[in-house]
Amino acid sequence: MYKINDNYLKLQGSYLFSTIAKKVNNFKKNNPDNKIISLGIGDVTQPLVPTIINKLHHAVDEMGQVDTFKGYAPDLGYEFLRNAIAEGDYRTRGIDISIDEIFVSDGVKCDAGNIQELFSVDNKIAVCDPVYPVYIDTNVMAGRTGAYNTINQRWSDVIYMPCTTDNNFAPELPKKTPDIIYLCFPNNPTGTAITKDQLQGWVDYANRVKAVIIYDGAYEAYISEDEVPHTIYECEGAKNCAIELKSFSKNAGFTGVRLGYTVVPKELKCDNVSLNTLWARRHGTKYNGAPYIIQRAGEAVYSETGREQLKRQVDYYMNNAKAILEGLRSAGYSVYGGINAPYIWCKTPNNITSWEFFDYLLEEANVVGTPGIGFGPQGEGYFRLTAFSTYENTIEAIERIKKL
Amino acid sequence: MYKINDNYLKLQGSYLFSTIAKKVNNFKKNNPDNKIISLGIGDVTQPLVPTIINKLHHAVDEMGQVDTFKGYAPDLGYEFLRNAIAEGDYRTRGIDISIDEIFVSDGVKCDAGNIQELFSVDNKIAVCDPVYPVYIDTNVMAGRTGAYNTINQRWSDVIYMPCTTDNNFAPELPKKTPDIIYLCFPNNPTGTAITKDQLQGWVDYANRVKAVIIYDGAYEAYISEDEVPHTIYECEGAKNCAIELKSFSKNAGFTGVRLGYTVVPKELKCDNVSLNTLWARRHGTKYNGAPYIIQRAGEAVYSETGREQLKRQVDYYMNNAKAILEGLRSAGYSVYGGINAPYIWCKTPNNITSWEFFDYLLEEANVVGTPGIGFGPQGEGYFRLTAFSTYENTIEAIERIKKL
Repeated sequence: MYKINDNYLKLQGSYLFSTIAKKVNNFKKNNPDNKIISLGIGDVTQPLVPTIINKLHHAVDEMGQVDTFKGYAPDLGYEFLRNAIAEGDYRTRGIDISIDEIFVSDGVKCDAGNIQELFSVDNKIAVCDPVYPVYIDTNVMAGRTGAYNTINQRWSDVIYMPCTTDNNFAPELPKKTPDIIYLCFPNNPTGTAITKDQLQGWVDYANRVKAVIIYDGAYEAYISEDEVPHTIYECEGAKNCAIELKSFSKNAGFTGVRLGYTVVPKELKCDNVSLNTLWARRHGTKYNGAPYIIQRAGEAVYSETGREQLKRQVDYYMNNAKAILEGLRSAGYSVYGGINAPYIWCKTPNNITSWEFFDYLLEEANVVGTPGIGFGPQGEGYFRLTAFSTYENTIEAIERIKKL
Repeated sequence: MYKINDNYLKLQGSYLFSTIAKKVNNFKKNNPDNKIISLGIGDVTQPLVPTIINKLHHAVDEMGQVDTFKGYAPDLGYEFLRNAIAEGDYRTRGIDISIDEIFVSDGVKCDAGNIQELFSVDNKIAVCDPVYPVYIDTNVMAGRTGAYNTINQRWSDVIYMPCTTDNNFAPELPKKTPDIIYLCFPNNPTGTAITKDQLQGWVDYANRVKAVIIYDGAYEAYISEDEVPHTIYECEGAKNCAIELKSFSKNAGFTGVRLGYTVVPKELKCDNVSLNTLWARRHGTKYNGAPYIIQRAGEAVYSETGREQLKRQVDYYMNNAKAILEGLRSAGYSVYGGINAPYIWCKTPNNITSWEFFDYLLEEANVVGTPGIGFGPQGEGYFRLTAFSTYENTIEAIERIKKL
């Protein structure tokens, strides 16, 4: 008789954004005339830019002609896209990443979830608290997290690195030594960033204790300050200890287009085993590549006109971030992030809980945000707002909050 | 210090089609003027049909307008596509599958690789021999297959079900009881099918021993005989024991478009745990949906004009299959399959090995096929040819083989 993977049964509740969707749908049902504005889930609202639309049309036409039709893609992704990535995201920054260190995928969420498969089940992970839930949940499913403690809301075998006002939301080196360290900067959910020097400290630490860093750089396009690194490979020694995950979701509005990539440097080895080879094997065995037309759209992101159009899109969202930051500050809220990231991390008023604040904003202002507690116990008393709405809705939402 | 998942190190050699690609590239380098015809990898050659191209253009335009732009897709896939699937693939056959039992994905290879995550590591799998390598390799990676025996080329903890001329390539119920049974009909690689009565025997067996069937129906569109079932849910009791994997790759030419779906019926439970709920949780946590524009292309597959155009495409490939079958038979080869599937399973002449025949055909006829041994020890002495080339190339390849 077959048995299920009972690690799945250890998962706590349903996925954060599903819970929010249910609450919002319920409110809508009871208040059909209210206009709800969502600054909740980190989903973009601006359409794909013209250069990308043109490239998509062209690629669709190619798929309709026998001479240009494309079947299965190369395992790692088309070279035209990997060349564009190697050049646009690395070589122009003076970093040499070869195209066979780049693995094109359908997004960071998948890669962040799948990458843990390369490691032993008894490896210990370290995560920031608060943190993007996917890092933990996928390790729960793999049986790597031990038992859940409902009192302190923590897993027994996970090392938590608190990110609070005390450390300016920059995690400190953990006291217990981890094997796998998940870092995301600019950070989701706090919207804060760390400097290149701070990141170098993590790289040095990982190399010293022989840990591997899973570096999620999904929000890199939003960096505005010079001292914030655009890739972990700006740090010396990073190729020996770090895997970098990148997304097209937030820099190019691809949340519904689905494209990302992962860099696994050839220098990254565990004893003599190359992690690049392992990841290549996983790609070849369990994945069949991103769609050709989507990979062409990704290529357009790196074209000159693509870059110009996307810079304006990022500026548009960061203008929203500024409006949120300034609006909430003027209303007396303590707010963080929003300078190098499209997220604003807001302290709840009067120390009410995150979910209380969620319900309050939903009911009184018809504004949806994300409760900080959904990202971990240290997120309690915080609230995440995103800059991804339209400008008009962002302004209206902030005005409503200011009036409360 | 971190450690890798050393199950990966147990994987045998590289993935079959990578090895073939290397051999072919090597031959090309040494014989740049020879025209190689590939009847090897099961990749389609005909362009997307006009109805699908139109739908793709329309969806691309939607992504370029703020009012119609789509961000993150619903976890299970858009309802318009799941409705089309439920209606087109099930309800029209008198089978009731609800849309929340359908999970849209980026293809059968991913789903076939990922589905094993739902089950305990100590579950025992049964596979046909020969078999699509993904079923085994993904279980090797998960640590479910025991040790590899290089002499008999078998994994110690895997139950093999030989498919040979003795049983007309229809596997018999295994002597040892498995927990998870992988079945693929019409079959890759043998191109053969089983009747509804035969499949009902498997469903009854699975329900009796409380095993789960992973049913890969990727080649369903090629069924031409009445007694061959189009879905496992035609069998009584299948909803209690079977998960069905379906692809758009072969019926609609989506190998480079990437779309598939998996059906996990709500009745499918292990004790009281619903596998539908587990798979939904996996989708929500590790996946972000197929691209919107691709899901719209999938919807077009079920439209009236889409069906008509795709029927002609399937007929085109099956005409190739007929040419291969008849050509090889007239040349004295023993051939199987090719009636309900786009694959022809050919006995090698004079009992030479599969790889010997591969090299022989490559060198003497410049024709590429797939060595049967790549699919398992019972595939030794066989060779797979696909009907997915153009008609002209198929005819030329068969003429070359006939001349040898």
